[in-house]
Amino acid sequence: MALDPWGADVFEEFKAETKKGLDIRPSIAVTKAHINMLEIQEAIQKGRIKIDGKIVGKNGDVSVTKIALEPVWYLPGIARRFGITEGELRKGLFTHTGGMFPELVTRHDLKVFMPPIGSSTAYIFGPTDFVANPKKELTVRVHDECNGSDVFGSDICTCRPYLVHGIEEAIKTAQAGGSGLIIYFRKEGRALGEVTKFLVYNARKRNKDGDTAAAYFHRTECVAGVQDMRFQQIMPDALHWLGITRIDNFISMSDMKHDAIVDSGIKIINRVPIPEDMIPLDAQVEMEEKKAAGYFTKDKTKSKDQLKKVKGRGLNQ
Amino acid sequence: MALDPWGADVFEEFKAETKKGLDIRPSIAVTKAHINMLEIQEAIQKGRIKIDGKIVGKNGDVSVTKIALEPVWYLPGIARRFGITEGELRKGLFTHTGGMFPELVTRHDLKVFMPPIGSSTAYIFGPTDFVANPKKELTVRVHDECNGSDVFGSDICTCRPYLVHGIEEAIKTAQAGGSGLIIYFRKEGRALGEVTKFLVYNARKRNKDGDTAAAYFHRTECVAGVQDMRFQQIMPDALHWLGITRIDNFISMSDMKHDAIVDSGIKIINRVPIPEDMIPLDAQVEMEEKKAAGYFTKDKTKSKDQLKKVKGRGLNQ
Repeated sequence: MALDPWGADVFEEFKAETKKGLDIRPSIAVTKAHINMLEIQEAIQKGRIKIDGKIVGKNGDVSVTKIALEPVWYLPGIARRFGITEGELRKGLFTHTGGMFPELVTRHDLKVFMPPIGSSTAYIFGPTDFVANPKKELTVRVHDECNGSDVFGSDICTCRPYLVHGIEEAIKTAQAGGSGLIIYFRKEGRALGEVTKFLVYNARKRNKDGDTAAAYFHRTECVAGVQDMRFQQIMPDALHWLGITRIDNFISMSDMKHDAIVDSGIKIINRVPIPEDMIPLDAQVEMEEKKAAGYFTKDKTKSKDQLKKVKGRGLNQ
Repeated sequence: MALDPWGADVFEEFKAETKKGLDIRPSIAVTKAHINMLEIQEAIQKGRIKIDGKIVGKNGDVSVTKIALEPVWYLPGIARRFGITEGELRKGLFTHTGGMFPELVTRHDLKVFMPPIGSSTAYIFGPTDFVANPKKELTVRVHDECNGSDVFGSDICTCRPYLVHGIEEAIKTAQAGGSGLIIYFRKEGRALGEVTKFLVYNARKRNKDGDTAAAYFHRTECVAGVQDMRFQQIMPDALHWLGITRIDNFISMSDMKHDAIVDSGIKIINRVPIPEDMIPLDAQVEMEEKKAAGYFTKDKTKSKDQLKKVKGRGLNQ
């Protein structure tokens, strides 16, 4: 697994071991919070979301349970998930991190690894025990971090609008008697990071044909060598830890995320793309290319010539 | 230094070396963007910010130059900054990361280390060359990440409101003929991370006297062993890289940040605390305790008895 299933309750689960003197620490923590986002306030004003006094309070604040999850990798299991041997996984991790943690290759008796890649956060809307109940409607969005949009609202991409849309749907499902779940992962810039991301933006904007949908993925390949560095295979672990067997509404266009979840044994009933009017203007390039590349959409996809016509803003505008 | 001063332009700076076959990569990237935050839209509607067609467009979008900066540590220099020997620094890094990168201790000839701690992002409002010009007014906020507030608007803390306030002031200074700068660092949860953060929230909310300002820092100490794990000594490097010698308006209450910047040789003229009406209700606890602990404020600080009366919301409210 990619997390410690007992990580939230180590002092109870490992009482005997702790008494004997073993130092065992929590890697999961659960708390409650009220969140307040202006986009949700706006949705309330426009009548899309109602104040119910339970999920959504009179100030427009939303009650949530939130869970921080540190990555804890059981290496033999992770290797199996990627369809490689444990030795190949260990060697690959060691080699591609420039020699981080040589015990990866020298100590095969140490089976558990905590990679320094940041923690994930799950936000639950509605009763937490509804999440694992297949008879209760469940809405889920899995979100990969994009600091430029999620925090600062950069208009070149759809990330924060997507997150907000997911939160709205999660709230509505919770208010209708089900529950909602948002999980925030730290895979900034398709796991390539912001330096690569900004170099790709420049390559796109300096393209002599302009920032076209047709060139969108190619630019990332030119700079980074790959289109996308994210693996979604271990993402479903958090869903399984929560006991989820069925997702009624999956708020995402990503086939990679969808397939990873379904392949892990969780049913997805409805796939929900982002409404057109929530997409920032300069993000049309991203949207059109994703659809052409096969991302889930209900629209008719554009031809290559049509994709060349979808252009983003120039670099100095 | 804590970053590569040539990191944005390696192919030009190291043309000869690259020709000889050395593989040298960029660790800094600069691009332009338009950001759009509902809080800024609201500030425009309320008349606090004006649309000028240059910094702030007619849609309320804000033009910025943004810079991604990967941490690149020159170990002898970093050690000097902390007032310790290079050997002590190397050993400390190695020991406290559970054995990450043994070359830290076995290869003293390798002087440069890239810690896996995430990149920082600088956002410049107004002309980038004004930032280093001490004759142009400069407004700066240094922000340490808090995902729960910065993205989700958790009302237990002041983080996003602080960031927004910093952005507003940066915009105003840029519009008045100066420039503004926001730097976003990845020190989630006082560098303790979200698992510890949530455990501290629970400890605060379960305190039999309630979530009082008096107990605010003590709870973190009980859970984590320290009140705050952030070091600000190397934070000013990004400011020096930008050529800054003088900050007219420093948007922060933090003495640690202020002192680190001033000790590094940059003048700070005005210190600007967050306006009262921007503080979420449940974050009053944080604000009152910070003021009592000596954080910068213009208010009269409260006594210990008064601090016991400042209480946050209960866990199950």
